[in-house]
Amino acid sequence: MTVTYEDVTGAARRIAGHALRTPVLEVSPGLFLKLEQLQHAGSFKARGAFNRILSAGELPPAGVIAASGGNHGLAVAHAARALGVRAEIFVPEVTSPVKVAGLRALGAEIRQAGALYAQAAEAAAKRAAETGALAVHAYDQPEVVAGQGTLGLELTGQVPGLDTILVAVGGGGLVAGVTVGSGALGGGVLGGGVLGDGGLGEGVSVGGGALGEGTAGPRIVAVEPELCPTLHEALRAGEPVQVPVSGVAADALGASRVGGLAYGICSRAAAAGSLASVLVTDEAVVAARRALWERHRVVAEHAGAAAYAALLSGAYTPASGERVAVVVCGANTDPSTLNAE
Amino acid sequence: MTVTYEDVTGAARRIAGHALRTPVLEVSPGLFLKLEQLQHAGSFKARGAFNRILSAGELPPAGVIAASGGNHGLAVAHAARALGVRAEIFVPEVTSPVKVAGLRALGAEIRQAGALYAQAAEAAAKRAAETGALAVHAYDQPEVVAGQGTLGLELTGQVPGLDTILVAVGGGGLVAGVTVGSGALGGGVLGGGVLGDGGLGEGVSVGGGALGEGTAGPRIVAVEPELCPTLHEALRAGEPVQVPVSGVAADALGASRVGGLAYGICSRAAAAGSLASVLVTDEAVVAARRALWERHRVVAEHAGAAAYAALLSGAYTPASGERVAVVVCGANTDPSTLNAE
Repeated sequence: MTVTYEDVTGAARRIAGHALRTPVLEVSPGLFLKLEQLQHAGSFKARGAFNRILSAGELPPAGVIAASGGNHGLAVAHAARALGVRAEIFVPEVTSPVKVAGLRALGAEIRQAGALYAQAAEAAAKRAAETGALAVHAYDQPEVVAGQGTLGLELTGQVPGLDTILVAVGGGGLVAGVTVGSGALGGGVLGGGVLGDGGLGEGVSVGGGALGEGTAGPRIVAVEPELCPTLHEALRAGEPVQVPVSGVAADALGASRVGGLAYGICSRAAAAGSLASVLVTDEAVVAARRALWERHRVVAEHAGAAAYAALLSGAYTPASGERVAVVVCGANTDPSTLNAE
Repeated sequence: MTVTYEDVTGAARRIAGHALRTPVLEVSPGLFLKLEQLQHAGSFKARGAFNRILSAGELPPAGVIAASGGNHGLAVAHAARALGVRAEIFVPEVTSPVKVAGLRALGAEIRQAGALYAQAAEAAAKRAAETGALAVHAYDQPEVVAGQGTLGLELTGQVPGLDTILVAVGGGGLVAGVTVGSGALGGGVLGGGVLGDGGLGEGVSVGGGALGEGTAGPRIVAVEPELCPTLHEALRAGEPVQVPVSGVAADALGASRVGGLAYGICSRAAAAGSLASVLVTDEAVVAARRALWERHRVVAEHAGAAAYAALLSGAYTPASGERVAVVVCGANTDPSTLNAE
């Protein structure tokens, strides 16, 4: 099971008029911010949620169901409300009252179940089996990956001649979708950029040639915090592996194992030299989040600043003249924590 | 003395590569946010500052000089640093230490002079006469108005078939520039939209015809807080008049008299039915600022949310099918004040 470029173009047609076409800001010559934090419900997740729900044809009376106390839950609740569908969201008991209130404000029914995310997910799966509701997975469903992929398709249309896309990785739905949707699997060869210390270690070869003129898609740089290295460790191990996750961005990037669908796509892209995996420190993520606000008046959550952190910290250094896009993927954050004082 | 469409296209060529081309976000069908708060130094003011400085040819050794403890000062300091020019900024003694530090961080020399803005401006003018530095006015210079006008030119290029632009008014540099640069003086006729209670009173006629297809520029809706009604009162009086100013947006929109250049352009546009002046309450501005964050993850200062407030409050109600752009013009604000809790 995989996701094709045609799946992504189909998703783009399906979600047009539902998800927003988010804008791109060229902050310096050749450096583009893809402002996906301006998406409905504050993150890219709305793309996958809309595509999954709209792909289902007639929906069951029980509506849709998801497990998430964060961006995915907000996106499913938003999409369900926009489409006039019932949504039931399972969240772990630790979910903050503010997030629960946010989900309720979007009209979702909230069920608190279990101490941890895994238990909430289990309860959601059990409930879906009982009610017949359509389950919307946070990352490991083809329609979800194809939906996230519309970001890549949109971005390559907005920035002609793009060489490189930096994108954060949690469960891998976004990076996999963008890899397919941007055409990076269509023959791109990683070259030009320089990987710093966080660069991909042994186990996956990274090509060194220049990008073919006009034929290849951009290369993908998959960025993870050192404390949430699920894709990085999977690529090293040659299969998805369970990893401990923590740190400032774990609320959004803290999947403990990369999705099978995402692993398949990313490992093929890495083997083809079209994808590299880099790690950034939590300190770099915090500094990048602050810099996005102070330099560019862009508010991002920590996860949303991770890709920019790779650039600021030197984990990825573009070559001279390289055209680079950084995906700012979410802004569901308390803005008061940006106050520099 | 006025500013022509050709002055604006000339300014656009001059500042290209210096000021950013800020993006547009279509938040619902036909409603566009012009995200000018993402401009260098956090407001539209960088456009006018760059155009004024770049228009001067060889600069005096004393560099540039301006009076402002706010967005204009930041923009002049930014432009001067980017162009390698010395900048001296006069601020009133009441200017907060944070703002002074922000100006210093941009490399400007800061002079605190007088209790109020008018005294700082007087001191700056005196100093410019002594040193020969190039004075950059906050709004009432042709190069400044033409620079701000590039926003209108850019926006009409980004949104084909735009009917209406909502824009906040302080000293009038932005609204006047946008009126010229968007082509609103090129034959636009105000029609379609409905003005609420804040609508323009007697003294200036507002046309009622529909916009001509493809020939006229968009109409301009000039938005001011009720507590800073400098353009509104000038249009009623038939000339710029001194008005008391206060309220949440007075730090950025609190010019006590509209610029002569801006008055000339805006009164011509109003007489031609291409410009209407509306007022919004401070409560509407505060609510709009919060809504921009909560709905769209856009951070704006109060002045930057004033134009959106006209829409949310019903001071301006678009007709069905009308294509409306709202200029979000600044974000030099403490984001912690957005916290909804």
